[in-house]
Amino acid sequence: MGGGRARVSCAVTDGGWCACVRRVSVRRTHARRARTVVNASSNVRRNPNMAQLKAGYLFPEIARIRTAHLEANPDAKIISLGIGDTTEPIPQAIVDGMVAGAAALGTKAGYSAKGGYGAEAGQMELRAGLAEKFYAGTPIEKTDVFVSDGSKCDISRMLQMFGTGRKIAVQDPSYPAYVDSSVIMGNSTGFDDATKQYQNITYMPCNADNDFFPDLSKAKNSELIFFCSPNNPTGAAATRAQLTQLVNQALETGSFIIYDAAYSAFIGNDDCPKTIYEIPGAEKCCIETCSFSKYAGFTGLRLGWTVFPEALKFSDGSSVRQDWNRMMGTSFNGASNVAQAAGLACLTDAGMKGMKDLVAFYKENAAILKSTWEEMGYKVYGGTDAPYVWVSFEGRDSWEVFTEILQKTDIVVTPGAGFGPAGNGYVRCSAFGSRENINEAARRLKEKFSK
Amino acid sequence: MGGGRARVSCAVTDGGWCACVRRVSVRRTHARRARTVVNASSNVRRNPNMAQLKAGYLFPEIARIRTAHLEANPDAKIISLGIGDTTEPIPQAIVDGMVAGAAALGTKAGYSAKGGYGAEAGQMELRAGLAEKFYAGTPIEKTDVFVSDGSKCDISRMLQMFGTGRKIAVQDPSYPAYVDSSVIMGNSTGFDDATKQYQNITYMPCNADNDFFPDLSKAKNSELIFFCSPNNPTGAAATRAQLTQLVNQALETGSFIIYDAAYSAFIGNDDCPKTIYEIPGAEKCCIETCSFSKYAGFTGLRLGWTVFPEALKFSDGSSVRQDWNRMMGTSFNGASNVAQAAGLACLTDAGMKGMKDLVAFYKENAAILKSTWEEMGYKVYGGTDAPYVWVSFEGRDSWEVFTEILQKTDIVVTPGAGFGPAGNGYVRCSAFGSRENINEAARRLKEKFSK
Repeated sequence: MGGGRARVSCAVTDGGWCACVRRVSVRRTHARRARTVVNASSNVRRNPNMAQLKAGYLFPEIARIRTAHLEANPDAKIISLGIGDTTEPIPQAIVDGMVAGAAALGTKAGYSAKGGYGAEAGQMELRAGLAEKFYAGTPIEKTDVFVSDGSKCDISRMLQMFGTGRKIAVQDPSYPAYVDSSVIMGNSTGFDDATKQYQNITYMPCNADNDFFPDLSKAKNSELIFFCSPNNPTGAAATRAQLTQLVNQALETGSFIIYDAAYSAFIGNDDCPKTIYEIPGAEKCCIETCSFSKYAGFTGLRLGWTVFPEALKFSDGSSVRQDWNRMMGTSFNGASNVAQAAGLACLTDAGMKGMKDLVAFYKENAAILKSTWEEMGYKVYGGTDAPYVWVSFEGRDSWEVFTEILQKTDIVVTPGAGFGPAGNGYVRCSAFGSRENINEAARRLKEKFSK
Repeated sequence: MGGGRARVSCAVTDGGWCACVRRVSVRRTHARRARTVVNASSNVRRNPNMAQLKAGYLFPEIARIRTAHLEANPDAKIISLGIGDTTEPIPQAIVDGMVAGAAALGTKAGYSAKGGYGAEAGQMELRAGLAEKFYAGTPIEKTDVFVSDGSKCDISRMLQMFGTGRKIAVQDPSYPAYVDSSVIMGNSTGFDDATKQYQNITYMPCNADNDFFPDLSKAKNSELIFFCSPNNPTGAAATRAQLTQLVNQALETGSFIIYDAAYSAFIGNDDCPKTIYEIPGAEKCCIETCSFSKYAGFTGLRLGWTVFPEALKFSDGSSVRQDWNRMMGTSFNGASNVAQAAGLACLTDAGMKGMKDLVAFYKENAAILKSTWEEMGYKVYGGTDAPYVWVSFEGRDSWEVFTEILQKTDIVVTPGAGFGPAGNGYVRCSAFGSRENINEAARRLKEKFSK
């Protein structure tokens, strides 16, 4: 520690809030002095919300375990049915549009048209195309559609916009970004080791007993209700009647639904709406987020969108869309122009066909996985209107099952408990994979896990 | 209002915190009932932090005024010296790398290598390249470098990671995202119309009297100090001695510096460091954010990075980098793979030369603008080690000057007050533009604004 420098240590540690300010009585005369300063830690306290989070975010954690398995078993031919990551090339018509968009940035005219800062909410041509292709017949207009770098990013940003101290409800199990981002924004008071739930967040169990549609009455006092259909991870697609019940309750209690439609292209059942805005009144209580990730293989390219309808108002009558616009303008600079070029190519006839074929391919994979587990004697859910197959291990610890599957077959699945406590006893198998890998996974599973 | 439904209206309006929960005594029996529900506003209160923000974010506001001017004057040939947006094509060697990266996503092998979800912190090859090209000779390692979709986005995310109730200090004037993102995260108690400052945020005036380097003692009690060099908007590049003073104070008081180096490629003066990590001890107190936007014309492509050194610790001794890693894993999914391909191409010899030439071109523009104003009899700052020329209008209202310039010359500049109250009396001219436009702007200005 530098001479003449008083360092007042702080009594509050371990993520607690510390208001103390170190008093310093230093006269520093030249730069060299600083090299002698020992400053092992700063005076900046850690955000206690960050300290609440358990371990790592789910998928990086699984990637870490996969890497460790591979290091211990260098010859293992790992097949990932874990993170829902696309594996097939982007359809050629879409790649062509993207390449043309990229090449144009090397020309005067192309750069002048789309090279520089774009609108934070996305190119209007793309917003209009999304409204036309995905929201025709609903009250949604192009100016309600905000293009972004993906749903996960938008979920974090919208929780930042809503601010701290919100009453959040989630399906249990659900995509972990809902809860983790809520915790970061201070919407929980801490993790409860007994229930495996974050306090102050309402968990609505979805399991075989309720056909994976929750008891919504648990969320009557919630302000923001996350709802994903087709659901990640259970694969359950909600019916029109169920979504009507969801929307009606929100209209009555005055809550907002944050509806995650990232997998709606996988819906085949006509009784399951592809957007929440098919439900009357949804434009007054629902935000819908969606993405090209699973439609066109854009998981790495990054392009999604979120809908904030004009009719959505805060309790003071002010516009939610207007705050979102301000939020995006302040914390975002638009999705990559090359990704937007690819997005426009998605909306052409050839692009739409490419996406349809790609989704059909992954649905066939899902059917193979589903029938594999069924033939082996397991209870299996999802996999029909979703790329996820949700396999019951009847009360077993899901991390234990995950580990057993990895060790016996070199297959990475996702432990159900990673999506919430009600996911324990299940594992999620993702249908994203080459046909060769899916067939090989089916073979290995049959060999080692048949009942 | 639906029959049988009691709607309790809330007495707290206008962005106030409202804890009331509507009591509903409804028995809803079928979906049709919802269509009769009138729900003009919800029960979700507006975030009072969002309500604190003044008008729109600066640059969308200016874009709006520009559009209005064009509508009123359809024949106007507008030249923008406003938002610092690049205008020249991306260097061909970089475009070639980007196009190859995009095309590869249409092939099995290419998609398999880089098509799917990437690491949230960026491809390690790119992180290593950034560390090598920009941080050689400093303590920064590749694992300290986090690739992202840009500095503005990272600033918002890092304020989210730090959480609410922070003591923030900024140079005045400065890039508006620092203050606006701080306000969104609840680090201010409101806007003071008299001082034109957000309360609880420390403004450190930078003006001609202090040679645009602030009195740092004002920030002795601050936790997070934003510092931008070369500065946006004043164009001032801090010297080694000045940055040493900044780092030493932070080490002594235990605060963190968030150092914005987005324009450091424009530095020509050898006495001005290109990264804060040239200063001894900076790795213990500084986060540095940077971007390809102004180096390679990536404003629309979106690729930047932020450095969180391993030695940076919270007051409890825990790792800031580790929290940032968790933050990025939860709220981000990696920069676009095509943008990362372009970033890798930037780091080749041909890419580095392309960037150097591009920066030199914009610096020539800056020199033209600077000498134009000087010849016209104005006091002018910046424009030597930065792409911004900061023109004094000696106490005049800067929005008024902005409007006068727009109306008389069809040139968009940026009013200094948009960057903070100490910016009033100045306008910022951006050197991003074609040579033809810069010369034409110089001609128009000389015609209408010569003293």
